[in-house]
Amino acid sequence: MHTPGSSVSGYTLLLVVQVVFIIVFGFCTDYAKELLPVKNETAKTTAAEPEASNLRKYPHFQDIHVMIFAGFAFLMTFLKRYGFSASGLNLLVASLVIQWAIIMRGCYEMEDGIIPISLQNLIGADIAAAAVLISMGALLGRTTPIQLLIMGIIEIAIFAGNEYLQLELVRAADVGGSITVHAFGAYFGLAVSFMLRPKKEQARAGPLEGSSYGSDISAMIGTIFLWIFWPSFNSALVDGADQERAIINTYLSLAGATVATFALSALVSHEHKLDMVHVQNSTLAGGVAVGSICNLLIHPFGALIVGVIAGVISVLGYRFLTPAILSKLRIADTCGVHNLHGMPAVLSAIFSSIYASFASHETYGTSLATIFPAMQQPTNGTEPGEPLEYVIGGYGRTGAKQGAFQLMAIGLTMAIAIVGGLLTGLILKSPSVRQLEEHELHKDDAFWETPSEESTTTTSTTSNTTQEASHQ
Amino acid sequence: MHTPGSSVSGYTLLLVVQVVFIIVFGFCTDYAKELLPVKNETAKTTAAEPEASNLRKYPHFQDIHVMIFAGFAFLMTFLKRYGFSASGLNLLVASLVIQWAIIMRGCYEMEDGIIPISLQNLIGADIAAAAVLISMGALLGRTTPIQLLIMGIIEIAIFAGNEYLQLELVRAADVGGSITVHAFGAYFGLAVSFMLRPKKEQARAGPLEGSSYGSDISAMIGTIFLWIFWPSFNSALVDGADQERAIINTYLSLAGATVATFALSALVSHEHKLDMVHVQNSTLAGGVAVGSICNLLIHPFGALIVGVIAGVISVLGYRFLTPAILSKLRIADTCGVHNLHGMPAVLSAIFSSIYASFASHETYGTSLATIFPAMQQPTNGTEPGEPLEYVIGGYGRTGAKQGAFQLMAIGLTMAIAIVGGLLTGLILKSPSVRQLEEHELHKDDAFWETPSEESTTTTSTTSNTTQEASHQ
Amino acid sequence: MHTPGSSVSGYTLLLVVQVVFIIVFGFCTDYAKELLPVKNETAKTTAAEPEASNLRKYPHFQDIHVMIFAGFAFLMTFLKRYGFSASGLNLLVASLVIQWAIIMRGCYEMEDGIIPISLQNLIGADIAAAAVLISMGALLGRTTPIQLLIMGIIEIAIFAGNEYLQLELVRAADVGGSITVHAFGAYFGLAVSFMLRPKKEQARAGPLEGSSYGSDISAMIGTIFLWIFWPSFNSALVDGADQERAIINTYLSLAGATVATFALSALVSHEHKLDMVHVQNSTLAGGVAVGSICNLLIHPFGALIVGVIAGVISVLGYRFLTPAILSKLRIADTCGVHNLHGMPAVLSAIFSSIYASFASHETYGTSLATIFPAMQQPTNGTEPGEPLEYVIGGYGRTGAKQGAFQLMAIGLTMAIAIVGGLLTGLILKSPSVRQLEEHELHKDDAFWETPSEESTTTTSTTSNTTQEASHQ
Repeated sequence: MHTPGSSVSGYTLLLVVQVVFIIVFGFCTDYAKELLPVKNETAKTTAAEPEASNLRKYPHFQDIHVMIFAGFAFLMTFLKRYGFSASGLNLLVASLVIQWAIIMRGCYEMEDGIIPISLQNLIGADIAAAAVLISMGALLGRTTPIQLLIMGIIEIAIFAGNEYLQLELVRAADVGGSITVHAFGAYFGLAVSFMLRPKKEQARAGPLEGSSYGSDISAMIGTIFLWIFWPSFNSALVDGADQERAIINTYLSLAGATVATFALSALVSHEHKLDMVHVQNSTLAGGVAVGSICNLLIHPFGALIVGVIAGVISVLGYRFLTPAILSKLRIADTCGVHNLHGMPAVLSAIFSSIYASFASHETYGTSLATIFPAMQQPTNGTEPGEPLEYVIGGYGRTGAKQGAFQLMAIGLTMAIAIVGGLLTGLILKSPSVRQLEEHELHKDDAFWETPSEESTTTTSTTSNTTQEASHQ
Repeated sequence: MHTPGSSVSGYTLLLVVQVVFIIVFGFCTDYAKELLPVKNETAKTTAAEPEASNLRKYPHFQDIHVMIFAGFAFLMTFLKRYGFSASGLNLLVASLVIQWAIIMRGCYEMEDGIIPISLQNLIGADIAAAAVLISMGALLGRTTPIQLLIMGIIEIAIFAGNEYLQLELVRAADVGGSITVHAFGAYFGLAVSFMLRPKKEQARAGPLEGSSYGSDISAMIGTIFLWIFWPSFNSALVDGADQERAIINTYLSLAGATVATFALSALVSHEHKLDMVHVQNSTLAGGVAVGSICNLLIHPFGALIVGVIAGVISVLGYRFLTPAILSKLRIADTCGVHNLHGMPAVLSAIFSSIYASFASHETYGTSLATIFPAMQQPTNGTEPGEPLEYVIGGYGRTGAKQGAFQLMAIGLTMAIAIVGGLLTGLILKSPSVRQLEEHELHKDDAFWETPSEESTTTTSTTSNTTQEASHQ
Repeated sequence: MHTPGSSVSGYTLLLVVQVVFIIVFGFCTDYAKELLPVKNETAKTTAAEPEASNLRKYPHFQDIHVMIFAGFAFLMTFLKRYGFSASGLNLLVASLVIQWAIIMRGCYEMEDGIIPISLQNLIGADIAAAAVLISMGALLGRTTPIQLLIMGIIEIAIFAGNEYLQLELVRAADVGGSITVHAFGAYFGLAVSFMLRPKKEQARAGPLEGSSYGSDISAMIGTIFLWIFWPSFNSALVDGADQERAIINTYLSLAGATVATFALSALVSHEHKLDMVHVQNSTLAGGVAVGSICNLLIHPFGALIVGVIAGVISVLGYRFLTPAILSKLRIADTCGVHNLHGMPAVLSAIFSSIYASFASHETYGTSLATIFPAMQQPTNGTEPGEPLEYVIGGYGRTGAKQGAFQLMAIGLTMAIAIVGGLLTGLILKSPSVRQLEEHELHKDDAFWETPSEESTTTTSTTSNTTQEASHQ
C-alpha cells in the first residue's frame, strides 16, 4: 500500500538546484546601491531619500507575503486528505521560485552585469510566485512534488520574459497583475493539466477529490486572508492617489463579487443551498477582475459593477463550465483556477481596453503619463532625467490605440502561457520523471509521513466511537 | 430531513439590493478630490499632503480589516456544526454592510450632494460593520442568512445616525468605539434576540449549541487575531502622541484582561478547570473596556486596572449572567456579546465620564481640544480655518459637564440600540420572512451543501472506525 | 479519571501577581515624555519628530505581535490533544510576561526612577516574551500552567539582565536576537527540562506525544505566520539601509532553509517521505541562523548559504540528535527547540564572529558605528549629544576583537541560560508546586473543560459511525 515518497534522485536534484542558485546569486547579484554603506559622509543625506521610499512599501509587501504564503497555502487545503501537501508544498514551491524569480526578473534590470537587490525585487518575486501557485492550483493533487518544482522553474523563466514584454515593451497597464500574473498562471496551469490529462475512462472526480467539514474551514483561512489583503496586492506598485484609488476600487470590487457570489451560488445550486467552493473562490474573483483597471478612474460604482460581474461569471464557471471542460476536454482543474483567475483576468483585460480607449489628457491630467506611459508624447521635455525607452508601436498613442495594445497584451500572454504550459506538460510527462499512480491522487500519504488516525482514537480517552463499537 | 436553503426570493432580493447599491454609488459618490487627477500641474505639490496622510493609515486599516473579516469570522466558528455559516456569512454580511455603511455614513459628510470617498470611508465602513457582526454574534445560529442581511441593512442606517449624534453633536470622546460600536452592536443584537426569543419550553441550549475540540481551536484563530490587532482598532482615528498612547493603553488593558480571565475562569469553573468560552471572549474584554479612554492620560497602571476589571466582569457574566438572562428573559446570546461587548463598553463609558470630569487644560495642554473638542472655548481664534460646528450644549464645557455628556452618550446609544433592535426583531419575525425551524438551529446543513462525512470515512484508508464496527 | 485543574491557590496567586504588577506600574512607570501633553505651545513642533519615529515602527511591531501571539501559539498546537493549552497558555504566559518584561527591561533605562513607556517598550516586551515561549516549547505538555507562569517570571528577570549585559556592556551585534532571545530561550528551557526529566523507565514518547492530521494543519498556521513575519522580527530594531538589508537577508535565508529542509527531510526519513515536524520547524531555522548577522554585508548569496546550512542542521537534529538526547540525557524537548532555536542560534553567533572579524571602516563606512558600536573610536567628536557609555573591553575594538566579543556573548548567554534554567527547574520541582501526573502528560483534559466528543457524534445527523455501530 505504501509507495516510496519519491525517488531519492528528485530531492537530491533539488539540493543541487539550490546550490546552483547560490552560485548564481554569488556572481550575479548584490544589494542595490542605496543599501551599500556610504563611504563618503557627505553623500549620506542624499542617499536617504530612495531607501526610505522602498521601506515605505514594506507593509504592502508583508500583506502580499501573507497572501502568497498563507492565503494560497490554506485555500488549497480544502481537499480532505491533501492538507499537508497544500500547505507544505505551497511553502516549498514558493521558497524555490522566489529565488529563481529574483534572478530571472533581474535579467531585465541588470546594472553592469549585477542584479541590484532591494525590497522591490522581493515584492516582484512574491508576485511572480503567485503565478506558479495559481498553476499549482489547477494541478492540485495530480502531480508529484518534484513535478511541481520542475514546472515552477520553467514557468518563472517564461513568466519573467512575458512580464517584461507586456509591461516594458507593449506597455500595457496592469498594476494588479491580472494579465501578467492571473491570466498567465491560470492558462499555463490549464495547459499543463491538458498534457497530464488522464485516460478517457479515468476522467472523473476521484474518491478523495472533495472536502471534509474541517478542511473546508481551513480553506476559509486562505480565502479570507486573500480577500483581506487583495487591495495591497493590486496597489503595491503604484503611489499616492493612484495607490489610494487602487485600494478603494479593489475593496469595492471584492465586496460586490462576494454579494454576487452568495446570491448566485444559492440560485444555481442544488436545493438552493450555498456551495463552499463558490464562497472560497468566487468571492475573490472581484480582486482579479479589477486588477488591470484598479488605478484608473473607474469610480466606485464601476468597481462594484466589475466585482458583481466577476462573481457571477465565476460561480457560473464552477457550476457549469468546469464539469464540461473535465468531461469534454479531460482538463482537470482541481481548484477551479479558470473560474477564479482565468476568466476574471480576461474580463479585467477587456475592461482595461475599454477604459483605455476613453482615456485622455483631459480626464487623467498629469497622471496619464504614469498610468499609460506610452500615451505620453515622445519628446517629453517636462520630465528630465527619465529617458523614454523603446516600446512596441512607439509613444504618443491615442486612447484607442492603447486600448488595442491592452487586448494585444492579454492575447499574447494567453498564447505564451498556453504554449509554455503545453511544452512544460510534455516534459513532466516524460518517462524520466516519476508520475502519480491513480491511487495516489489527491492524497498526502504517498509523499508524507502521516499520523495514524487509529492510534489517536485508541489512546484518546474522550473519543468513544471505537470503544462503543467494541463493547457490543 | 433536508429543507430548502432558503426561498429563492431571498437571494434574488439580495441581488436586487446589490444593484440598488450600485445605482446609489453611481449617483451619490465619487473619489475624494485629492484622489482625482490634477489638471493644473502647479497644483500637484499642494495636493500631495492630504493624500499622504490617508495612506499613512493604511497599515492600521489593514489590521482592522483582519479583525472584521478574519477575527470575527473565526471567533464565531466555535459552534461544532456552524463553521460554514460563521466564516461564510460573516464575509457576506460584512461585504454587504460595508457598502451600505459608506452610503449611510456618507450622508453626514456630503459635499455638493456627493459623498467623497477615500481610505477614511473604508476605515469607517469596516468599523460600522463591526457593530453588525457583534449583533450577529448574539443571534448566531438562530436566524436565516436573509434575516441577518435584513438586520444588517436596518442596523447600519441606525448606527450611522447614532454615530453622528454621539460624535458630532454630543461630542462624546470615544476613539475606540466602545460606545458607538460595541455597546450599540451588543444591545441592538440582544434586543433582536429578545424579539426572536423561543417559546417558553424551548428556552434551553440546543443539542448543537456547543463546541467540538476542533471548532474551539479554529475559534482561537479569531480570538488571537482580534487580540493582536485591537490596539490598531482603538488607535486608528487618532494621530501622533494620542495614537501611541491609545496603542500602549490597549496593549496593557488586553494583557491585564487576559491574566484576569484565566485566573477567574479557573476559580469559578467546575473542578477549577479553564473554560474555552472565557478564554476565547473575556480576554478581549480589555480592548472594549479601554476603548473610550485609550487616548486619555489613564497611565499604564490605569490601563491594566481597566483590563483586569473587564476580564473579571466578563467571566462572571459568562458564568452567571448569561444563563440567568436565558432562563429568566429567554434572551439567547450565543456568543455572549453582552459579556464581551455590552458590559465592558458600559464600563468604558463610565470610566470615560470619570476621566473627563478631571480633565482640564492644565493636565492635557494643547491636546485637550483634540481629545474633548467641546471643551475648547467657543471663540478659539488660534486654530484658523476650522470653524466650530454646532454641538449640543455648546462649547466651553467644563470637565464635569463633559463627563455628564459621556454618560448621556452611552445612555442615548443604549436607548437607540434597544428600540432599534426591538423594531428590527419585529420585522424579522413578520410572517413574510422565513424563520428557522427548531431542528435547523446552530446547523450549517439547512443552508449549505455540506460534505458527507460517511463517504470520507469509507474512502479514507487511514480512518478505521467504520470498518472496525462492520467487522464485528 | 478527572483530576482538579489545579490547586485554587495557584490561580489565586496569579491574581495576586497581577495586582502586584499594577502597583509596580503605578509607582515606577509613566508614558515617555514625548507622549505626555505639551504644555508649552511652542514646544509642539520640536516634539513631533521623535514620536513619529516610534509610530513608524508600528507595522513592524504588529508583525512581531502576530508572531508571538499567533505564530508561537499555533505552532505549538501540533500535539493531537494539547491544542487548548498550546493556544490558550501561549496567550496567558505571553500576557503575563510582557507586563513583567516592561518592568524588568525598564530597570535598565529608568529616568528619575520612572520607566518611560513608549512603543519601543512594547516591541522589547514582545521580543522578550519570545524567549519564554521558546522555553515553553521545550517543556510543552510536561508542566502545569502554574509551573509555566513561575518559569516565565524567573526567566524574564534573567533574560533582561542578560540582554543588557550582551547588548550594552559586551556590545555584541545581535539585531535579530539570535543570541539574546533564541539561544537564551532554548537553553534555558532545555535546562528546565533536564531538571524535570522523568524517571529512567519513563523516558520515552508518551501515547499523546504525537500529532493528528488536523493538529498538523493547525500547527502550519503557526509555522507559516512565523515564516512570513520573521523579516520583521529581525529588522525591527534597525533603520534605513540596515533595516532593508535585514529584511532581504532574512527573506533569502528562510527561502534557502525551506528548500534544504524539504530535501533533507525526504532524504533522511523513513521511505523518503516528508516529515511534518521538519516542515513545521526547520523551515524557520533560517530566520534564527541569520538573526545576528542579518544587517551585515553578508550579501544575498551569503544569506542563502546560512539558510541552507541552518535547514540541514535542523533536520539532522530532529532526526538524530533529539532522540539521542532523550534516551541518553532524558531531556525531553517536545517542540525540538534545540533544533529550531538552539543550534541555529549558536550558528548565527559563530557567523557573526566571523563577519565581525572582517569588518572595518573601509567596508562598512559610516554605518560601522551603528552596527558595531564598540568599534568606534572612544573620542568620537563627530556625533555630539550621544555620550559613549561604559562597555566591557572599551571602545575602539578591531574587527578581530569584536569577533571575540561575539563569541563571548553567546558563551555567556548559554552559561547564564543553563544555570538559570537549572535553578528554575529546581524551584518547579519543589514539593510545594503541583507536578503533572504521568497520565496528564500532553493532554488538555487535566486543566481544561473539554467538549465531550461522544455527544457530538450522537447529535450530529451527518456523522454516522455511532449509529452504524448501534444498528448491528
